[in-house]
Amino acid sequence: MYIYFDCIPCFARQSVEAAVMATKDPTLREKIIRAALKKASEIPLNKTPAHMGMEIHRIIRNLIGEVDPYRTIKSVYNKKALALYPEMKNLVTHASDRIETAVRIAIAGNVIDFGISPTNNEIELNKIIDETMRKPIAVNDLEELRESLENEERILYIADNAGEIVFDRVFIEEIPRFSERVTFAVKGQAVLNDATLKDAEETDMTGIVRVIDNGSDAPGTILETCSKRFRNEFSQADLVISKGQGNYETLSDCGEKCCFLLKAKCPVIAGHFGIEVGDLIIKIAK
Amino acid sequence: MYIYFDCIPCFARQSVEAAVMATKDPTLREKIIRAALKKASEIPLNKTPAHMGMEIHRIIRNLIGEVDPYRTIKSVYNKKALALYPEMKNLVTHASDRIETAVRIAIAGNVIDFGISPTNNEIELNKIIDETMRKPIAVNDLEELRESLENEERILYIADNAGEIVFDRVFIEEIPRFSERVTFAVKGQAVLNDATLKDAEETDMTGIVRVIDNGSDAPGTILETCSKRFRNEFSQADLVISKGQGNYETLSDCGEKCCFLLKAKCPVIAGHFGIEVGDLIIKIAK
Repeated sequence: MYIYFDCIPCFARQSVEAAVMATKDPTLREKIIRAALKKASEIPLNKTPAHMGMEIHRIIRNLIGEVDPYRTIKSVYNKKALALYPEMKNLVTHASDRIETAVRIAIAGNVIDFGISPTNNEIELNKIIDETMRKPIAVNDLEELRESLENEERILYIADNAGEIVFDRVFIEEIPRFSERVTFAVKGQAVLNDATLKDAEETDMTGIVRVIDNGSDAPGTILETCSKRFRNEFSQADLVISKGQGNYETLSDCGEKCCFLLKAKCPVIAGHFGIEVGDLIIKIAK
Repeated sequence: MYIYFDCIPCFARQSVEAAVMATKDPTLREKIIRAALKKASEIPLNKTPAHMGMEIHRIIRNLIGEVDPYRTIKSVYNKKALALYPEMKNLVTHASDRIETAVRIAIAGNVIDFGISPTNNEIELNKIIDETMRKPIAVNDLEELRESLENEERILYIADNAGEIVFDRVFIEEIPRFSERVTFAVKGQAVLNDATLKDAEETDMTGIVRVIDNGSDAPGTILETCSKRFRNEFSQADLVISKGQGNYETLSDCGEKCCFLLKAKCPVIAGHFGIEVGDLIIKIAK
C-alpha cells in the first residue's frame, strides 16, 4: 500500500511525538523535527507509510544514538496485558467458537499503538476487549483463515506491538500443534512501540513458540530491510498471519498466503478498505 | 505568539488541504506539498504560526499562478451569513445587554475558518450562534472593551474570514458613531478564506464603514508584510479590535490598545490561554 497525501500530516505528528519521546533537549527535538520534515518532503510516494516511520526513527538514532524511548511504556503494556491474560483465556475457554473469540482478542490487542494513538491517552484494555467481542467484523475472511489454520503446516506469525503480543499469544495457543507449527517474528530493532525480542521474553512468548527477529528497524515488514533468515522464513511459510496496520501497509501486495488481522485505525486505511475507522478486519490476500 | 512544536502537524495538514483545494493535478499537488514540507523544515520557530500559512499560499501562487481556490466557498459563506443577518439583528435588538450580545455574535462568526476546520464539514451557523450566546466567556475583558468603545476615537477593526465579516458588521453597528469612527481592514491578497475587499463588497460592509486592505498576503497581520498605509492606520488607531486566531498569533505582542476577539480553535491556542478548545476569548493586551 502506497503513501496517500493524507498520510503526510500524520508523518509530521509522528515526528513531533517521537522527538518529544526521544529527548528532553529542545534543541535536539527541533533538529529531529526539521530533519524528519525534510525527509518527508523528499519521500517517494511509491513507498509505504511505514517507510516514513522507519526514516523518522533512523533520524532519531542518528541524532541521539541508539535509543529506545518507548522501552518503559512497552514494559508497562506488556504487564497490563499479562494481567488480563487469565481473563482472556477464560473468555476463549467458555466461547461457543473458540477460534473466532481468539482471533477477536488478537485484533483487540491491535489497539495498543503509539504510532497512531497519542501516547498520553490511557488505553482501557478491558473495555476494548469487551467492544471487540461484540462488534461485527467489517472485512471477514474468518472461514478461510480457519481452514488455513487446519491445513497449512508452516505458520509465520508477524507481531506488531509490545503488549499486543500477549493478545496474540491467546490466539496462537488455539492453533492446533502451535508449538511445532508457529514461528513468531518480532522487530530486529526498537522502533516505536513495536515488539522486539525483549518483549517476547517479558511476556514469555519465547517459552511457548520459536521466536525470531526480522532484522529490520521498520514499523512494518519492509522485506528488503529484513534479514536473509527472516526472508527465508517468509518465503517458506505456508501461511503468514500479519498483525496490525504497519504490517498490512508493507505486506498487502505480498501474495495469497498472507492473512491480515487489524483494526482500521486511521481514515486512510478505513478508506482503503471502504469501511469506518475502528472497524475490524480479517483479510486474506487475494 | 511563536510557533509551538504542536503547530507543525497542522502546517502539514494545511499544506495538503490547500494543495487539494488549489488544483486537481496530482503532480502539482505533490509539488506543492513537497515544497511546503521543505519550507516547514526550515521555518524559524520565532515566527508566528500564521507566517507558515503565508508561506504555504505563496508556494501555491508560485507554482500555479495567482489563484483564489477559496473564492466560491467564501461567497457561499458570505451569502449564508447575510441570510442570518436579520435574525442576528433581532437578537441584539431584544438583548438586555446589546454590546455583549453583539460581541458574542462577532465571536460566533469566528468559527468560519477553513485553515482549521476541514473544508468539507458543513458549518451550522445557526447552531453556533445559539451556543455562543449561552457559553461562559473564558477570558473576559468585556468591561474594558465596553469602556474603550465609548472613549477611544479612532477604531481599527481587523477582519478575519469571509462570512464572519457579516457577524462583525452586527457588532460594528452597535458601536456609537461607527460610520465616523470605525475603519474596517481586510487582507490585501487572497489567502485561505480570509476576507478581502471583494468580500467586503459582497456583504455591503463597504456601504457602512470605511474599508481598507492591509496590503498583505498573510493569514493574520504580520505588520512588516503590510502596506505603509495600513501601518499608519494601525499606529494612529486608539483601539484595535482584532478578530480570530491568525490575527491574535501575529498581533499578541503589539501593545495595549489591541482587543482580541476569538474562539480557541486548537489545543495550542487553548493551552496558551490555559483554557479549553472551543472557549470564548475577549482579551485586552496588557
